[in-house]
Amino acid sequence: MNIACLDFEGVLVPEIWIGLAERTGIEQLRVTTREMPDYHQLMRRRLGILAQHGIKFRDLQAAAEGLEPLPGAREFLDWLRARFQVAIVSDTYYELAGPLIAKLGHPMLLCHRLRVDGAGNIADYVLRQEDPKRHTVRAFKSLRYRVLATGDSYNDIPMLEEADSACLFRPPEKVVQDYPAFPVARSYEELKAAFLAANEAA
Amino acid sequence: MNIACLDFEGVLVPEIWIGLAERTGIEQLRVTTREMPDYHQLMRRRLGILAQHGIKFRDLQAAAEGLEPLPGAREFLDWLRARFQVAIVSDTYYELAGPLIAKLGHPMLLCHRLRVDGAGNIADYVLRQEDPKRHTVRAFKSLRYRVLATGDSYNDIPMLEEADSACLFRPPEKVVQDYPAFPVARSYEELKAAFLAANEAA
Repeated sequence: MNIACLDFEGVLVPEIWIGLAERTGIEQLRVTTREMPDYHQLMRRRLGILAQHGIKFRDLQAAAEGLEPLPGAREFLDWLRARFQVAIVSDTYYELAGPLIAKLGHPMLLCHRLRVDGAGNIADYVLRQEDPKRHTVRAFKSLRYRVLATGDSYNDIPMLEEADSACLFRPPEKVVQDYPAFPVARSYEELKAAFLAANEAA
Repeated sequence: MNIACLDFEGVLVPEIWIGLAERTGIEQLRVTTREMPDYHQLMRRRLGILAQHGIKFRDLQAAAEGLEPLPGAREFLDWLRARFQVAIVSDTYYELAGPLIAKLGHPMLLCHRLRVDGAGNIADYVLRQEDPKRHTVRAFKSLRYRVLATGDSYNDIPMLEEADSACLFRPPEKVVQDYPAFPVARSYEELKAAFLAANEAA
């Protein structure tokens, strides 16, 4: 039996902060790790923007409720869960991802937390641990599973490197250029084929 | 965020081998770890009985298709998955548990495998690792999660000991006597209360 470790945003759901930008009308929230690779710098910027616009945690939650999984994501995930054990390994936050995870049938999600203060403001973000995606693959390997992994961006590379089998899913061209060794899937059908091939190779 | 590690048989579903005994009509298959604590001895006995009766893997699979989760188990699990990340940690086999896991909405299942030979006989069983339940709790703790655990029998004790918070669920009286330090839940409502209390204590 294999464990499939999937990135979340860009693989099963849209970029959550871009959705929040559209729903709150704050265009500055559109910046993601693709434009600003330093995650801590990006998150401090996001929290500053929220504070500046007086956006409360409940406003973000309401915006998150309006988000939908990518077309075909639920069907792909159902197919995958019938054949593999699945963990979604993400740098998102439980407090924002909850509605999307419910719409996907509550797969296991391993990610981070937001800290909300008594006034309902997002006071801080709490990363579960440094290098979380690599550690997650190692944990499942310690349980004697083979780990197959997919993701679309730079923060997924440690997970893909640590996995027994890995591919990129709909990555930006720059990621493909920087990491040409990883095969690329551009549709859920191609991703299914990649997972089945990795399974049979075991 | 916490991870809830649940035993499978006795917590969410009936004892699978007892169900197989009823559906195949082979009463000797009723013996479980409660009567025969040495797991390897028990599995060798089971495989011997299957061979003796000419029971093929596909017969066992057909019997497994007829099994149903315990009353209220699906509702309890849905409640739990909306509040915790859930892993089912079991000494069962993927090949037998599949239909029950599908009926429960495909939660993550960490268990073992059967090896089927070319003639369709169950040739052997393959444990994922020794002391699998304890290792599973350790793996999630290595990801900086608090782990809450529940189970009903002796093979769950390492998991309950390793967890940050643990209780027994509908255990045999002998298990309660041997491990009086663990609180006991006797219904899903009591189990919900135990998980919520452990969560708030964090």
